[in-house]
Amino acid sequence: MAEQLTIIKVGGKIVEAPDTLSRLLADFAAIDGKKVLVHGGGRSATHIASQLGVETHMVDGRRITDDAMLEVVTMVYGGLVNKRIVAGLQAAGVNALGMTGADMDIIRSVKRPLRDGIDYGWVGDVSRVDGVALSRIIDGGIVPVIAPLTHDGHGHMLNTNADTMAGSVACALARHYDVRLVFCFEKEGVLLDENDDSTVVSQLTRNCYAGLKDKGIVSGGMIPKLDNAFATIDAGVSEVVITKASNLNDLSRGTHVVG
Amino acid sequence: MAEQLTIIKVGGKIVEAPDTLSRLLADFAAIDGKKVLVHGGGRSATHIASQLGVETHMVDGRRITDDAMLEVVTMVYGGLVNKRIVAGLQAAGVNALGMTGADMDIIRSVKRPLRDGIDYGWVGDVSRVDGVALSRIIDGGIVPVIAPLTHDGHGHMLNTNADTMAGSVACALARHYDVRLVFCFEKEGVLLDENDDSTVVSQLTRNCYAGLKDKGIVSGGMIPKLDNAFATIDAGVSEVVITKASNLNDLSRGTHVVG
Repeated sequence: MAEQLTIIKVGGKIVEAPDTLSRLLADFAAIDGKKVLVHGGGRSATHIASQLGVETHMVDGRRITDDAMLEVVTMVYGGLVNKRIVAGLQAAGVNALGMTGADMDIIRSVKRPLRDGIDYGWVGDVSRVDGVALSRIIDGGIVPVIAPLTHDGHGHMLNTNADTMAGSVACALARHYDVRLVFCFEKEGVLLDENDDSTVVSQLTRNCYAGLKDKGIVSGGMIPKLDNAFATIDAGVSEVVITKASNLNDLSRGTHVVG
Repeated sequence: MAEQLTIIKVGGKIVEAPDTLSRLLADFAAIDGKKVLVHGGGRSATHIASQLGVETHMVDGRRITDDAMLEVVTMVYGGLVNKRIVAGLQAAGVNALGMTGADMDIIRSVKRPLRDGIDYGWVGDVSRVDGVALSRIIDGGIVPVIAPLTHDGHGHMLNTNADTMAGSVACALARHYDVRLVFCFEKEGVLLDENDDSTVVSQLTRNCYAGLKDKGIVSGGMIPKLDNAFATIDAGVSEVVITKASNLNDLSRGTHVVG
């Protein structure tokens, strides 16, 4: 049986505030076994872009990335946010290695073509993850900390969605490990009543998901997240957990998406 | 006999302008064998700091690094400049891995104490290089691209001089390889007449260096550079080359510092 690997995806909100970041680092450091962290950083990017006079334009939650915005996200995701996490994990005894998709060519993507007439600019959709290179690093006792940036193999960095990257990395690593993919979320998980954290669905099957969608209980931004979760399960990931970042110390909580 | 390893240190000026950067990437890619790139980025840091309203204060060529400036250099060196080089090298067929000292804990430093009453802030002096970890990466066919940032092991990034980092990395790797350390410089090398590039000293011994210092031919910023070069030779580095970045395609040129 393959060894367990835990991949945690955490959004910008958690890693950008000192108090939630230090809790995250402690909880992440305490997770047993092999692990990978994939992080966001959108709020800092928006903040620094605004200070630099670069306007932020979002379409469907995705950042339009022109030349100036690409510089900002490369600095903020690959430098500021990534290195703060790496230094913090090193202090917590985790041998972290900050990476973008360009580093060791681990994740390539393709610049997104126009969609419905919208030019997303330097935004990339993942085309290939090098699971062998990643597993070699992980087997060396190193913990990759992955920023939401990839490259096209022709010298351009590309801004890439962190959820999608975490999913693609999980699928590639499922050939090497028993992979558990954890998405940190603002709520306890998938809720039957969105205002009541005690109504969390602890195990979500495909049938159950279909029913919740029909009833409109699962809607909006949760749908692509869960579609993505089921796709990674189909690709060999053992389990997808959707939980609150503050519950990372107990991964039995949250919603467990299973085949 | 140990395998040859070439370490190139290149300043911000070269990596920040698109035309000199693309030439550097091509020349670096063409260097045979194992290699490491250490880069600066000070001009971009000063430029972006100014756009962000963060004032730059230099003392003896060193940047005073308060909290705001640490954020800037972490973004610019570790993100913007580093990832631009990494993506460019990947496109040139070099399997680059961008790193700071915090990544894989390869270079630790100690926050500089007050000197002559000057508080340099978050500036670090290198205390330890993990040559074993670096050599493992290099032996895996990967080319480290090192930004001038280290960490203190307690969760803080530290702004660190790129020349010193290149020297420390060279000394640590001299236990594993036959190391050639190349400092890219604005002139052809050490010149007998600073206005005449044809007067380059091709081989500089310690005796010759003492003579040139006595005559005032070598002075100013060149002295710490050469002292550093002789110190790395004493620590086991085979050769230190001081040359123009545009001459990287022919490393027989420039000044060769030998024991």
